[in-house]
Amino acid sequence: MIKREKGKMIQPRKAIQKMKPYNPPTASRKGKLRVDFNENTVGPSPQVLALLKKLNEEDLVVYPEYGMLREKLAEYLGVAKNQVIATNGTDEAILTVMSSFIEKDDVVVLPVPTFAMFKFYASIFEAKIMDILYKNDLSFPTKAVLNAINKKTKLVVLVNPNNPTASSISDEDIKKILLKARENSALVLIDEAYYQFMGRSSIELISDYDNLIILQTFSKAFGLAGLRLGYVISNEEVVKTLSKVLSPYSVNSIAVTCGIMALDDVAYVDEYVKEVLKSKEILYREFEKLDIKTYKSDANFFVAYFGDKATAIYQKLKDRNILVRDRTTYPLLKDCLRIGVGTRKQTRFFLYEVKEVLAEVGWKQ
Amino acid sequence: MIKREKGKMIQPRKAIQKMKPYNPPTASRKGKLRVDFNENTVGPSPQVLALLKKLNEEDLVVYPEYGMLREKLAEYLGVAKNQVIATNGTDEAILTVMSSFIEKDDVVVLPVPTFAMFKFYASIFEAKIMDILYKNDLSFPTKAVLNAINKKTKLVVLVNPNNPTASSISDEDIKKILLKARENSALVLIDEAYYQFMGRSSIELISDYDNLIILQTFSKAFGLAGLRLGYVISNEEVVKTLSKVLSPYSVNSIAVTCGIMALDDVAYVDEYVKEVLKSKEILYREFEKLDIKTYKSDANFFVAYFGDKATAIYQKLKDRNILVRDRTTYPLLKDCLRIGVGTRKQTRFFLYEVKEVLAEVGWKQ
Repeated sequence: MIKREKGKMIQPRKAIQKMKPYNPPTASRKGKLRVDFNENTVGPSPQVLALLKKLNEEDLVVYPEYGMLREKLAEYLGVAKNQVIATNGTDEAILTVMSSFIEKDDVVVLPVPTFAMFKFYASIFEAKIMDILYKNDLSFPTKAVLNAINKKTKLVVLVNPNNPTASSISDEDIKKILLKARENSALVLIDEAYYQFMGRSSIELISDYDNLIILQTFSKAFGLAGLRLGYVISNEEVVKTLSKVLSPYSVNSIAVTCGIMALDDVAYVDEYVKEVLKSKEILYREFEKLDIKTYKSDANFFVAYFGDKATAIYQKLKDRNILVRDRTTYPLLKDCLRIGVGTRKQTRFFLYEVKEVLAEVGWKQ
Repeated sequence: MIKREKGKMIQPRKAIQKMKPYNPPTASRKGKLRVDFNENTVGPSPQVLALLKKLNEEDLVVYPEYGMLREKLAEYLGVAKNQVIATNGTDEAILTVMSSFIEKDDVVVLPVPTFAMFKFYASIFEAKIMDILYKNDLSFPTKAVLNAINKKTKLVVLVNPNNPTASSISDEDIKKILLKARENSALVLIDEAYYQFMGRSSIELISDYDNLIILQTFSKAFGLAGLRLGYVISNEEVVKTLSKVLSPYSVNSIAVTCGIMALDDVAYVDEYVKEVLKSKEILYREFEKLDIKTYKSDANFFVAYFGDKATAIYQKLKDRNILVRDRTTYPLLKDCLRIGVGTRKQTRFFLYEVKEVLAEVGWKQ
């Protein structure tokens, strides 16, 4: 038996030692009103649910195959089959882009606050992260990002619309950034997890800018977060590189089968998006009446300012089984909560409960 | 529009450029006798299949939660909850161990031939891989591995029983390797994907050797390869480190739900293992009658030598919808096929077809 002496254990890489654990609050979310993770709040297409009942042992016992999913995705996106590849959620897509292109000390330009996994994976590959702060009104800092791009830049990360700010980047600004990045031999990674709610995508720029990589997901509008299905769209050379680094079986069979079925019922997603946009209008109107400051949103969530009542409101909503996201520790988001938008029915219920909670905390009385 | 000039595209890291793509032949395997990937050949527990019919929209729409799966795994394995963590198949487990501990130029001792993903991920993290050849009779090269371990070694990879050789490593040899590795501040990673067919595991050594990391999977005996569910067992410090590097949602919800159910019916796996072992006896006996050389196997597959007929036999079996694995290009395995073992019923069918094929190719006439 080997005696364990403190500090003599084999140590992880220094880069890993420095990393902080990222533990999102995922426990016990079922059966509640989940407007904390920006998922679809009701579920995927009924066709997908019906398919689940038809799965058989071969869907479980056999290693997954991806040919048909890639074809369906290519058709849906209007790209070639070799310009798209499925990943185990967006997380694996980010990991794979970083592991393919990022060397130690490469500079990654990252507008913040944003989705945590970019910094997470950039740290694993020991990139130098250059944070660029969003503007005070949470709009995209175009000038600052353009100024930050230089010969040392390897990757520029854009999240459009951004999480958690819900703000978007104009097509014109994206082109400017792509050009400046290209001149400096830098890649631009655009995460479009919520693009359906914004109503536009940068996919068509793939053919014009060979430094562009786009990420999309089935976790949000499609309502399949539990299955872990994301995908990367880029030119065929980049996709070929990513394929080399990806595990040959990272996406599971059920995600493949359900993903294909979900793409057969895109109308369901379109309807859900319309419903969310109507809900969002109601929420903005009611929040204005309640004198709660909100920020512009192009996504299925938004940031609202609750001053020194934010944490109390977060907790009291949670006690009522309504989950919003506490983002008060993020840059620019002091005293703010991020609130997801569901159906109008859910919104009416949400507003009723919010009003009760506001009364309890003595909101602007 | 940016004109694409050949060779001017942003290039991936040098380590990635050097990697060869790994494309296992996964297409169109359903509806065939699959003895090529060492999966369970019939399916998971009927309880798991029954569960599939009961899944609802919350299993798809909500991000996965892992608390209960970890508890169940810990109970099944006889370890503490913080000594085990689930991964998206064994692939992600290997990736995570490498990304946590391997720095550029660290030496990884790798007995070969073995499962391809160790070299795959070691290459991504730019390790120096020291291949140690198995013995000519495909038994484990204990002395050579012990001699290879020195101060430069960071990781020793053991696959027990090994794929594709099907040979195992004795408990005594494992302890010797763990000790030598520990003296040299090296980790030992044991992949036990097929341990149920061997009937023993090194899990109990976790408490004695703090440099030991064990991988197991639901893809083989449990019959859940399509779901991608693996797990890592180690001491709590190592598991804590791996947790930091793992994506917070890498394992999908269906894998979690089905994995928990599979652990509730371990008797099913025990029965399947017994059936496979009986089948293997039949196969060895019949192959001996047919004058086909086989190598000792402690797994649910074995290596058989077919001389210059190997490729023809592989192809003719494939034409009959029987999939075995061509391993003729692997070191030590020239003119060999790897053959999985299923139920006795499948084995009788397999042997019938093999005899037909042998007659067609004029085997030892």
